[in-house]
Amino acid sequence: MDNAGSRFSPIQAFLEFLHAKYAPLREGEVATYIPELATADPEAFGICVATTDGFVYEVGASRQEFTIQSISKPFVYGLALDDNGPEWMMAKVGVEPSGDAFNAISLHKVTGCPLNPMINTGAIATTGQIAADTPQQRLERILQMFSLYAGRRLRIDQDVYLSESRTGHRNRAIGHLLRNFDVLTDEPNATVDTYFQQCAIAVTCGDLALMGATLANQGINPLTGVRAIREDHVENVLSVMASCGMYDFSGGWIYNVGMPAKSGVAGGVLAVLPGQLGIGVYSPRLDTQGNSVRALKVCEELSRAWELHQFNPPYCPQNSRRLTYTSAQRTSSRTRHPAEREHLRASGHLIHVVEMQSNLAFSTTEPIIRDVIGSAEKPRGMILDCHHVTSINRVAARLLADLARDLKSRKCDVYFTHTSRLPMLKAQVATHLADSDLCAELFRYHSTDAALEQCEDLLLGEARAQHTSGKNLREFEITAGLTEEELAVFASLLTDRHYASGEVIIRLGTESTNLFLITKGVVGVWLGAVTGEGRRMGSFSVGTMVGEMAFLDGEKRSANVVAEGDVECAVLEIATFLALQQSHPTLHTKILRNIGISLATKLRKLNQDVTILSAQRD
Amino acid sequence: MDNAGSRFSPIQAFLEFLHAKYAPLREGEVATYIPELATADPEAFGICVATTDGFVYEVGASRQEFTIQSISKPFVYGLALDDNGPEWMMAKVGVEPSGDAFNAISLHKVTGCPLNPMINTGAIATTGQIAADTPQQRLERILQMFSLYAGRRLRIDQDVYLSESRTGHRNRAIGHLLRNFDVLTDEPNATVDTYFQQCAIAVTCGDLALMGATLANQGINPLTGVRAIREDHVENVLSVMASCGMYDFSGGWIYNVGMPAKSGVAGGVLAVLPGQLGIGVYSPRLDTQGNSVRALKVCEELSRAWELHQFNPPYCPQNSRRLTYTSAQRTSSRTRHPAEREHLRASGHLIHVVEMQSNLAFSTTEPIIRDVIGSAEKPRGMILDCHHVTSINRVAARLLADLARDLKSRKCDVYFTHTSRLPMLKAQVATHLADSDLCAELFRYHSTDAALEQCEDLLLGEARAQHTSGKNLREFEITAGLTEEELAVFASLLTDRHYASGEVIIRLGTESTNLFLITKGVVGVWLGAVTGEGRRMGSFSVGTMVGEMAFLDGEKRSANVVAEGDVECAVLEIATFLALQQSHPTLHTKILRNIGISLATKLRKLNQDVTILSAQRD
Repeated sequence: MDNAGSRFSPIQAFLEFLHAKYAPLREGEVATYIPELATADPEAFGICVATTDGFVYEVGASRQEFTIQSISKPFVYGLALDDNGPEWMMAKVGVEPSGDAFNAISLHKVTGCPLNPMINTGAIATTGQIAADTPQQRLERILQMFSLYAGRRLRIDQDVYLSESRTGHRNRAIGHLLRNFDVLTDEPNATVDTYFQQCAIAVTCGDLALMGATLANQGINPLTGVRAIREDHVENVLSVMASCGMYDFSGGWIYNVGMPAKSGVAGGVLAVLPGQLGIGVYSPRLDTQGNSVRALKVCEELSRAWELHQFNPPYCPQNSRRLTYTSAQRTSSRTRHPAEREHLRASGHLIHVVEMQSNLAFSTTEPIIRDVIGSAEKPRGMILDCHHVTSINRVAARLLADLARDLKSRKCDVYFTHTSRLPMLKAQVATHLADSDLCAELFRYHSTDAALEQCEDLLLGEARAQHTSGKNLREFEITAGLTEEELAVFASLLTDRHYASGEVIIRLGTESTNLFLITKGVVGVWLGAVTGEGRRMGSFSVGTMVGEMAFLDGEKRSANVVAEGDVECAVLEIATFLALQQSHPTLHTKILRNIGISLATKLRKLNQDVTILSAQRD
Repeated sequence: MDNAGSRFSPIQAFLEFLHAKYAPLREGEVATYIPELATADPEAFGICVATTDGFVYEVGASRQEFTIQSISKPFVYGLALDDNGPEWMMAKVGVEPSGDAFNAISLHKVTGCPLNPMINTGAIATTGQIAADTPQQRLERILQMFSLYAGRRLRIDQDVYLSESRTGHRNRAIGHLLRNFDVLTDEPNATVDTYFQQCAIAVTCGDLALMGATLANQGINPLTGVRAIREDHVENVLSVMASCGMYDFSGGWIYNVGMPAKSGVAGGVLAVLPGQLGIGVYSPRLDTQGNSVRALKVCEELSRAWELHQFNPPYCPQNSRRLTYTSAQRTSSRTRHPAEREHLRASGHLIHVVEMQSNLAFSTTEPIIRDVIGSAEKPRGMILDCHHVTSINRVAARLLADLARDLKSRKCDVYFTHTSRLPMLKAQVATHLADSDLCAELFRYHSTDAALEQCEDLLLGEARAQHTSGKNLREFEITAGLTEEELAVFASLLTDRHYASGEVIIRLGTESTNLFLITKGVVGVWLGAVTGEGRRMGSFSVGTMVGEMAFLDGEKRSANVVAEGDVECAVLEIATFLALQQSHPTLHTKILRNIGISLATKLRKLNQDVTILSAQRD
């Protein structure tokens, strides 16, 4: 409750409401089959909810320790899967509900294997599969594993352990029976003893919530960022919880609550909403099936009030497309020759930008693919912008790779942009395509803007609509409306300058106030350094002018302007221009007005960009 | 395969690969316990996947009909829930896995109720609960229900029905047993007969996929848009499929495939990935547990390859915030007095805009709430933009309502904007808050821009920083750098005009080229009509000028400008201005340059807007 405590949170408020509602409930009895459990305070009651980004809501006795008991079973099963793999484990312990009580001595009629790892026979068999040279080492590995889930070092409650050890004859019988069927191959008493200790690990319901959130978060503890179980075994652990986690109420639990869960006889219940949250509840009074009475009520009401049932989530796939547009709607930040602008207005619809977002998995990637292959006209450029993608799994990466390869084979350029936070994407695409040249091409541009500029250049190049040198001053907006005579005067005022690639034309912070007409090449506008930390704000090519803002107001330069390749400019110095006011006032006014018109043109483009980007046309 | 057929789809390609891979598999036997089933072509094999927006991928014998058999059970159970509610049904049929074979005559030891609706005892008991006056009416209601799921009128395969009817003695025995325990209260043979007919409904695996997609889509058929089952019963139907849907392989199925599913002895399998997709597979060869051999293989491989296991989805909640910014980063589209701009730069961080997106449910709303209540300084304005929200459930609406009420009680204005496509939000907020004034206030503005403008006005008003009349021409950017003498000349050129509320100041398409300095009130800029279809592009208030673009280039007006309330303007006519070039050339130049600088200032704001909106700073 670090930051939510200070202000009102409707979520915290609801948990407090639930706690107050069920605290007076006195149904059920504290477990006594382990004598030490009988000493628990029957009225202890805590509720915790942990999110998959590690925030913990807590109410009541949320930091009171109790023993984990049967809630240990799915976690030790997960460790056994990490150690041995699912095939080995399936040969030792089944995954079918038994229909029998948790402590029944039920083994498969043919194989002698326990039916599932959530009943005692299966749990003891599972503990026996944890890789270790000695019982001490096995216990320590189990403790370490639980500590990773909880995000803190856990310890064993010796009183409970010794109490169970003194009375656990039934479980010792199970151990020998498992040894008889060769499910256990070690000395069974040592394994049963480790099992007693694993059940006596002391946890709080805050721990349980975080352990649940770790499973909800694909096995990574959301607070520490440390992995507690291999990602591909998380689904196995949650599956056995879902089918057999709540004793003989497992079917009813899934029906009413709709989340994988596990309860323990000390009164703990842990529930997991995969991808979303973990819940831990503690209240020692148990019903006849061995589940905490209040915990059941709390989980049922939480699930109903917050609509957490995993089998009725809202439809989600459409959200993977944040924004789509074509170059006819929004061009790159390159300011281009008027004729080039005209060409892109007519053919820019062949270049598509798809801003993807959220987690790309099968269901969120499928509509993107359908969109792309369904586009009316064959696209020439396809930019898949990953800036807002929060994660991508293998299948999504492979599907996008397949799509990209096919588009490339049909003469459409494809670029994945803003992928730096998604190394997984590039790695998977590289593996899947097994074509390093193609892969390098797909990931050639960091930014969508750069990729868009490239696609535009390509389109212009193919149509021979590129203006790569523009000595003819008539083509510049700044000369609009000038008479031949005025044009000649204007031309005589300009100085030709040449810049080598990388040379700085305008330097951020300086007071130079010249105006640059670009007659050859491309210049880039950079905020901050030209590489690394800097950000390329835009670029200008032949037929355009750069530097008119400082030219007008005399302010210091607000960006660096740098030659990208060989550049030639016709430069108008401010002093020359000001002198013109006296010598040729009409010419001076015309140029001033043309600069204003050029600014107005840029304003119109940006207005359109804002409309496209805000995507709010209603 | 309407549009995916024409171009390469990696998804279609993978389904074709799977079909080719498993078509040669000859394991398993066609069911013979109903004689007519034995006539099925053992090599028939179809695979379909339907998305929750109604797109169907299909391979092989996807349009070949077969009988639905046990796959009918969960759907009829859903209809029984709609008719009677879960409490009634729970008293008739349990929801726990039985551990017994599908045709075992297993009833609860104490209650005599069937253990779950997926075994024959439970299914026949369920059919008996469908509300009807006659067996014909009952059958017709069942057929109608299935037709809603499939999106087409389904029919009964009379040969299979008659074949089962002739041989179904065991099921008739079950009927009488259920009658004995008063689970059935009608004549049992009629119910068993309806059950035989329900099992003999002819479907294709395309139908199964769409039926699955309907369940995945909260009960609404994604193709027809028609509801087939009440939304709150979908989770119940899927729960019994998950715990008992695949006979004695239910635990193993959840473990390996991780989706609720149901199989039938004719060789069909239907699987559902809630919120995402439905799968239908048909292949009549069955394994010893009664499940289609190829369908099992296909579903296992699909789940693995496409990472569909429901218990290991990626972490999702963070994606509910599309964009957040404050008024210090991006103001409304109101162009304001320079002093007001300055004030908002300093205090605009107290006004927050949260663009929400995707489906708002508990887990996606919780981080938004945490963000809002965790903001460092107490906000004065909070705009919750719903434009990109695709759906909102009850809990999300209630949590946001609670949040809004609390913020309002702490003197923070709150607005939900762009909510027109989410009537559910307003309805839920109204019900939950039970305060119609507060609710009206929360939904007062359609657009975020209007709400932002209002919050800015409030902030300025409180700080007495509003400039509501600006007769002092010195305060206008257009007079920067003018001498006292020049200012007097400039003032003498202006004509004062008054506009009543709603009066058009500049009309779209006209050639008027005057410049308007706003000295009182606010003017709005509208693209298209001033209301209804039109879009308010921005507004201008005291100290600013409007109309400079046409003033510069003489083009026709590109928008309507309308007085919003009482407005006074100082108008500079173009002719007057042009005459100035001769009479006062220096003044003329200064004004021209100041117009350019004003455009440059607007350009800078829009550049910043684009940066904020594109949210791409890396």
